[in-house]
Amino acid sequence: MTSITGKTKLFATLGYPVGHVLTPQKMNALFAERHYDGVMVAVAATPGQDLARVVAAFRAMRNFGGAVVTVPHKTGIVTLCDHLSPRAANAGAVNVIRREADGSITGDLLDGVGFVTGLQNAGETLKDRRVLLAGAGGAALAIAFALAEAGVAHITVTNRSQDRLDALISRLKNSFPRLSVSANDLSEGHDIAINATSLGLRENDPLPIAPEHLRPPMLVAEVVMMPEQTGLLKAAGWAGCRTHSGRHMLTGQLSAIFDFLTAA
Amino acid sequence: MTSITGKTKLFATLGYPVGHVLTPQKMNALFAERHYDGVMVAVAATPGQDLARVVAAFRAMRNFGGAVVTVPHKTGIVTLCDHLSPRAANAGAVNVIRREADGSITGDLLDGVGFVTGLQNAGETLKDRRVLLAGAGGAALAIAFALAEAGVAHITVTNRSQDRLDALISRLKNSFPRLSVSANDLSEGHDIAINATSLGLRENDPLPIAPEHLRPPMLVAEVVMMPEQTGLLKAAGWAGCRTHSGRHMLTGQLSAIFDFLTAA
Repeated sequence: MTSITGKTKLFATLGYPVGHVLTPQKMNALFAERHYDGVMVAVAATPGQDLARVVAAFRAMRNFGGAVVTVPHKTGIVTLCDHLSPRAANAGAVNVIRREADGSITGDLLDGVGFVTGLQNAGETLKDRRVLLAGAGGAALAIAFALAEAGVAHITVTNRSQDRLDALISRLKNSFPRLSVSANDLSEGHDIAINATSLGLRENDPLPIAPEHLRPPMLVAEVVMMPEQTGLLKAAGWAGCRTHSGRHMLTGQLSAIFDFLTAA
Repeated sequence: MTSITGKTKLFATLGYPVGHVLTPQKMNALFAERHYDGVMVAVAATPGQDLARVVAAFRAMRNFGGAVVTVPHKTGIVTLCDHLSPRAANAGAVNVIRREADGSITGDLLDGVGFVTGLQNAGETLKDRRVLLAGAGGAALAIAFALAEAGVAHITVTNRSQDRLDALISRLKNSFPRLSVSANDLSEGHDIAINATSLGLRENDPLPIAPEHLRPPMLVAEVVMMPEQTGLLKAAGWAGCRTHSGRHMLTGQLSAIFDFLTAA
């Protein structure tokens, strides 16, 4: 890490608690690698009034750049932003904020963008592809939006809870009227299968996509980072499919976060 | 500098502008030297509402340790503190704040303590000494209080402006009724002469104390740091006096600031 001076731009990882966060270490390494004079520190604040006070101070600090927003503030910070990206507004969630030159705060949601950037950095093409997406939670929503923005032709969403599935599909259709979307129909031909559930974190988790649906030349991709070789990726390998592990999402996210934070 | 993690305690140098500040570099070096898991960053905020917002956020940030307060906030921050040390209250100025475990903010004024710590670190004894102090501004006031707290027997204050001189002497007498104090009487025997004016910063400045008053075994001490060899210190050397340059104050201040900031 380079030395902190009075000219160093200030960034934060904002959460509660923050003892376990790894973003400051990773972003400071990226700042050094890219010769950017910035420093990221962890900031611990509880939801509600304390969060509002911290965001008010971010506006007031002239040398503040922005923050990565993590648990439990991703939804609570939405109303504290002055500007939201369409995807953040649509998801009702924010994972990065940036201080603009006028002191206003812009929020964006880069979870899905990070995943898509990770795919693209690994050389994958998304334009006109047909995607099978397992999950309808926050991660799946963010990834579905980022896939649609990247120009995929079709998304099939699968989920056990019908309510969340319906909600995600309705949001997708509203935002991308020309995107082809279907629910729970695994028979259609897919180029890319993505696990956006947390299944795979634990050793005895069921597979998020049944092995019979994994067929070459399909690419099978994960959001789960630990273990790097999830049950799904193992099954995909046995079936002869190419695989894309969760760590690509992390690298893609860092790159997308850097671009967002330093764009003011 | 060690790596910043989610467990690293956060400190600030709070001023406006902050591009030129050197405290973050120096304090981060001291944190590393003392194996203390802290990081100091510069925070730029203008006086008034923005300063108030930043201090409100310092209360809200659970992993915030404290701040060095510099120009132009040393007086403006006084009313934003919950607790003040007697010397800060008396001077109406604060140069360090600390976040207590309950989120309250304690302010102190360590300028004079830093100077006295610098003298003590250099092996000088202050107890029962007779001191000649040139100047009646903020630095002189802080040093006078710190000298009185360190147990000197007598302080002679000299200053061109009678009003400021009277004000300083009156404050000193109020706070330390048993201290012997006199004004502008350079004939009395002094063990230590201290320049607490800014005379010496520029090459053509007049001497803050006339050379005929510098006589061995007197110790002659400076607050001016640049140049290290001021006109006063040169004259003191020619007169055969021992000298104590302004850089000792900086080292003493850093040590006193570290102790204050990490005491919560």
